[in-house]
Amino acid sequence: MKTLTFLLALLPAIAPAQSTAYRDPGMKVVTQVAIVCRDIEVTSKRWAAVLGVDPPQIRTTKPGHEVNVLFRGRSSEGRAKLAFIKLGQVTLELIQPVGGDTSWKQYLDTNGEGVQHIAFQVTDLDKTIQGFGDAGMPVLHQGRYDDDSGAYVYVDSAKALGVTLELLHSEPKK
Amino acid sequence: MKTLTFLLALLPAIAPAQSTAYRDPGMKVVTQVAIVCRDIEVTSKRWAAVLGVDPPQIRTTKPGHEVNVLFRGRSSEGRAKLAFIKLGQVTLELIQPVGGDTSWKQYLDTNGEGVQHIAFQVTDLDKTIQGFGDAGMPVLHQGRYDDDSGAYVYVDSAKALGVTLELLHSEPKK
Repeated sequence: MKTLTFLLALLPAIAPAQSTAYRDPGMKVVTQVAIVCRDIEVTSKRWAAVLGVDPPQIRTTKPGHEVNVLFRGRSSEGRAKLAFIKLGQVTLELIQPVGGDTSWKQYLDTNGEGVQHIAFQVTDLDKTIQGFGDAGMPVLHQGRYDDDSGAYVYVDSAKALGVTLELLHSEPKK
Repeated sequence: MKTLTFLLALLPAIAPAQSTAYRDPGMKVVTQVAIVCRDIEVTSKRWAAVLGVDPPQIRTTKPGHEVNVLFRGRSSEGRAKLAFIKLGQVTLELIQPVGGDTSWKQYLDTNGEGVQHIAFQVTDLDKTIQGFGDAGMPVLHQGRYDDDSGAYVYVDSAKALGVTLELLHSEPKK
């Protein structure tokens, strides 16, 4: 009996991989804070003036089918106008939704302008998605970077955590 | 005439302080991203689990009159339960409003849970407040740190910029 008690006490130490969910090291550093807005020309100029920087360039993402955009598991032609302002470790991202269904459009339609997501650059995208899925936060919206150098995945975390999380995965150059 | 043209061309170089609004160097680095939530015990544990860190300590701020809290220019007894998780350069701040009127309570009542503000540590608080005021973003909510080592000021920027900004000013030790 003593031996059994001893072995049971040891279990958590010898089998931590089986009992602990995967947590990507990239989840320790926020890399982006993203604001959804109605008119990115106006909002980006206001931000630049307030921060004392030059107005950022604005670009429009490729049509959804060219970059594998899925929203709630379905193909979407949703796009966005984007602008980026570097603020130390964190990049401020401004997003104006364009066209079909995306998490950006959903946020703007439901909440109005505001911080729609914060982003993390993860090492193992699949394992991280699995971990969030197991915790009740499935994939909400995803696609590939316009230059095909990586992928972005939003998990449906707004109800549980107060904000949508974006997982970014830049791939090594081939 | 040539001399006059030359002098006029020099003007922007010799008198930039008069023509350019003050922009604090601290506005180049985001230091906090803050989420307002209904139950900080629950939300902070969820965040800790997702990030793979220990649950943060939770503390309640002092009553408003002890730390000079003003909301829209009036004294407020508003308080908050706070928890902090360091994520690189940025600290994730969780806020559960307690009691009277504050920008935290206003956000939760109007928008539900979400990112209520992002923060910057500024060098010259008065000049920065003046700059935001001149740009149509007056002070919304303010108070002193519980240990009296500094002040926080929220400016009413949500409509113009998509998010409320917090200006933090930690004072040199006396």
